[in-house]
Amino acid sequence: MDALQNTWYPAAWSEDVGTQLLKRTLLNESIVFFRTRDRTPVALANMCPHRFAPLHLGKVIDDTVQCGYHGLRFNASGNCVFNPDGDGITPSAAKVRSYPLHERYGLLWIWMGDPVLADSTILPVYPFMENRDRYHPVTGYLHVKTSYRFMIDNLMDVAHVLILHHDMLACPGLALTKTKLVREGAGIWANRLATNTTPPVIFDMMWRRTRGDYTSAMDHWAESRWDAPSLISQNTGVALTGTPREAGLETKNCHFATPETDKSTHYFWAICRNFDLDNEKFDEEIRAGTQYAFVEQDEPMVEALQELVGDREFWSMKPALLQGDIGTVEVRRALDRLIEQERGASNCSRHTAAAFG
Amino acid sequence: MDALQNTWYPAAWSEDVGTQLLKRTLLNESIVFFRTRDRTPVALANMCPHRFAPLHLGKVIDDTVQCGYHGLRFNASGNCVFNPDGDGITPSAAKVRSYPLHERYGLLWIWMGDPVLADSTILPVYPFMENRDRYHPVTGYLHVKTSYRFMIDNLMDVAHVLILHHDMLACPGLALTKTKLVREGAGIWANRLATNTTPPVIFDMMWRRTRGDYTSAMDHWAESRWDAPSLISQNTGVALTGTPREAGLETKNCHFATPETDKSTHYFWAICRNFDLDNEKFDEEIRAGTQYAFVEQDEPMVEALQELVGDREFWSMKPALLQGDIGTVEVRRALDRLIEQERGASNCSRHTAAAFG
Amino acid sequence: MDALQNTWYPAAWSEDVGTQLLKRTLLNESIVFFRTRDRTPVALANMCPHRFAPLHLGKVIDDTVQCGYHGLRFNASGNCVFNPDGDGITPSAAKVRSYPLHERYGLLWIWMGDPVLADSTILPVYPFMENRDRYHPVTGYLHVKTSYRFMIDNLMDVAHVLILHHDMLACPGLALTKTKLVREGAGIWANRLATNTTPPVIFDMMWRRTRGDYTSAMDHWAESRWDAPSLISQNTGVALTGTPREAGLETKNCHFATPETDKSTHYFWAICRNFDLDNEKFDEEIRAGTQYAFVEQDEPMVEALQELVGDREFWSMKPALLQGDIGTVEVRRALDRLIEQERGASNCSRHTAAAFG
Repeated sequence: MDALQNTWYPAAWSEDVGTQLLKRTLLNESIVFFRTRDRTPVALANMCPHRFAPLHLGKVIDDTVQCGYHGLRFNASGNCVFNPDGDGITPSAAKVRSYPLHERYGLLWIWMGDPVLADSTILPVYPFMENRDRYHPVTGYLHVKTSYRFMIDNLMDVAHVLILHHDMLACPGLALTKTKLVREGAGIWANRLATNTTPPVIFDMMWRRTRGDYTSAMDHWAESRWDAPSLISQNTGVALTGTPREAGLETKNCHFATPETDKSTHYFWAICRNFDLDNEKFDEEIRAGTQYAFVEQDEPMVEALQELVGDREFWSMKPALLQGDIGTVEVRRALDRLIEQERGASNCSRHTAAAFG
Repeated sequence: MDALQNTWYPAAWSEDVGTQLLKRTLLNESIVFFRTRDRTPVALANMCPHRFAPLHLGKVIDDTVQCGYHGLRFNASGNCVFNPDGDGITPSAAKVRSYPLHERYGLLWIWMGDPVLADSTILPVYPFMENRDRYHPVTGYLHVKTSYRFMIDNLMDVAHVLILHHDMLACPGLALTKTKLVREGAGIWANRLATNTTPPVIFDMMWRRTRGDYTSAMDHWAESRWDAPSLISQNTGVALTGTPREAGLETKNCHFATPETDKSTHYFWAICRNFDLDNEKFDEEIRAGTQYAFVEQDEPMVEALQELVGDREFWSMKPALLQGDIGTVEVRRALDRLIEQERGASNCSRHTAAAFG
Repeated sequence: MDALQNTWYPAAWSEDVGTQLLKRTLLNESIVFFRTRDRTPVALANMCPHRFAPLHLGKVIDDTVQCGYHGLRFNASGNCVFNPDGDGITPSAAKVRSYPLHERYGLLWIWMGDPVLADSTILPVYPFMENRDRYHPVTGYLHVKTSYRFMIDNLMDVAHVLILHHDMLACPGLALTKTKLVREGAGIWANRLATNTTPPVIFDMMWRRTRGDYTSAMDHWAESRWDAPSLISQNTGVALTGTPREAGLETKNCHFATPETDKSTHYFWAICRNFDLDNEKFDEEIRAGTQYAFVEQDEPMVEALQELVGDREFWSMKPALLQGDIGTVEVRRALDRLIEQERGASNCSRHTAAAFG
């Protein structure tokens, strides 16, 4: 499929994988997850090599998956270690693929490519996901019937907020600024900053409840960073104009889009706020607000878009690009290049078709 | 698809298009309809050229469609006239196709081919749809999961009435007559006339209620006319044998079948009666009766037929044709020829495979 | 499709075909069944050769099928014998295929290949299905969304009982035996016998209720026989160790899997017991138990397996075979050979890829 293989994808929130089997399709591959008794996470190909039963219909016994059809048991390495039937022989061919996993930021990350290349040090760094003294996270998962590419497009693009999220997140002042592209290592930032403006409804509300009334204008920033393969992190905040960012309210967010199939995506989100860390009511409101913005506004759009576009390739459709698309476009091109490199292809000529304005 | 492009198709009943966006797929193309404040109808391709969002998820603002994703606005010509974001530039490439529309007979007609060729004078003439002194119309719309070709087959064929509509519309006397083919300009009539017969249940009922009991035998006629691309009009009536048609009861009907996809159809119908024009109870009964005959009798048949036939081509299946099929067959051939002409093809040899009886 | 044509398949239980039309798809062909007034069963291709309406939407009149669209009538031979319309001519091309049927064992058997080759004497013999003095049958039908090949795999394989049917049918003693392959004519038996063991829960229960408590160990056997194309019969029973089989409890069963499409199957089952023949409560319990074992245990497995395997060919996936698969494997190979022979192909090389252990 149109996706990087030799890279880490979030596969599940850590707490969603326990001693029961969890089935999940990633990059068109059916995979079964569980933990051994020492909490080590395991990811195995979800098909018994004997007669091809889905392993997720079996159960976990003694740190192995027992196939629900004939009872072959596979350990964390994917080797068959027990056959309850007949002569009890476990054929050497009875082996399932085991996927490298890495656990960090409360997520299980999976390596879909060559296991030899799996290197957990290449994972991007998200300090706000680990610094509980300064940030409090609220997290969630959604299944979306659109390509992970359209999810990245959406998340790298601040411009859509004005219209699609007109009620809670929109900021007319921010809409009138230009998006600034910033490269940081292999990451790509698309940033906007509005000074001397009126904040979005959601920040106005949070400010009043945490800091009280205010009379000054505000600065509002919205910054999205992409890291390969499909990891978006964001800074979104407000501060009274003339005061430093640190004195304001800010959420640092993760929006990770893992391909399920060519046209569906596992979406993992985390909203980490730097204010009122212990306020559980805020947790609930942020959860509800994020669900609302995504489920009621983004999701119907990106799913209908996917249905309309069908199998057509993005660049071949010659998008009429705007200034606000520079993040989306740079990221599409960067990811195209990485995928082509991985495939050993060097021909990038097809990108020359797209042009701004 | 297997359909004429340079022709008018009914797209919607006039009253179904207002200032709200209406999405409808025609000939496999997704189209969005609305009216400007002066009631001018507009049909635009339902895909924003920016990042491919379906326009029907947006809204109408100042006689333009505002895309629900990033807020680009498109006027009735399909030109982008406003970009709310960033530098506000509206790229010249940001243009959507605008389809010619023509409003007549209470319908919006759309031209799916080359707009330069759109010519409203080639629309067939249906005087009974406009002469309210002599005819009172009852109209409806149905979505049918069958090819528009099978709809035409059905509507050009009186022979199926005896069996499929055995309870209300069948006339054994009419079934024993032969279908007569009459060409009128580019139109094709398939006509039947039974003299000295018993009328269908529905006409017997209407006669008794409007004229009272009768003792004479009746004449009954059923005539279907096809005009390109898929427009059927009908005369169906009864008169006491020996009296002129004009002294009888008659409905003049339209049955227009517009392709939605290769296997689904928008069906627009109108039943125009020449009796008891102001009787609202008749309106309701005709509406209910037409719905009954179609939804309970024709629709299950033509939908199951479509499912059974699948992607096979009609002529390649070598239909065993009957005398009563001459209308259906002549129309299929005429339409095949028009489609081939439009495609610049002149090879009509495949039709020689079909033979009567 | 991947199935024998010149052979008998069960099409329906005899009592499910009466004077009403029954539509059923077999080997991807839509077929309509009914009986004439003298109870002769008829199977016709379910498509009118006139304008391709599905005949099952019509009705039976005077031992013919009347098409529900235009009323053509077809007799048991598939010849058009009546046209109610117009000139009444029945074109010689108006003929539908009539499939040879044979009625035995309470089933209607259909011949899908060349009618000239249809020979009812090649039907396998199932004496227990006809000897009501010694066996009492309980029968059923299920529609399963899996290939008939996966149904055969399942039914020829005793090994899966230990795990998938762990609660009622499993016998740990039997699981520790080896499957013995026995050829009998063109049939293939896969047999297991455990002596001196504890019986499955279901037999323990039936023994106690029919014979009372017991203290001896038991022998338990489970034997499956395949006959082409997809007919499995079984002997399953228990006897007190040291006593002959005849003194024990046994069911002789039929499990017949007829392809509907490439990925769905008509499954006909019969459980014939040699004890308490008149006990109607046992009838109900056997019916409920068989439904439970199949619908709750086998069906979810073989349907999920089918979905996971998709269109991949079994041997190309290189199954890691176990001793208990010898029945399944021999039958797959035998059926592959028959299908290849029927196609006139002699190349059996693809089977060499599979190897045990």
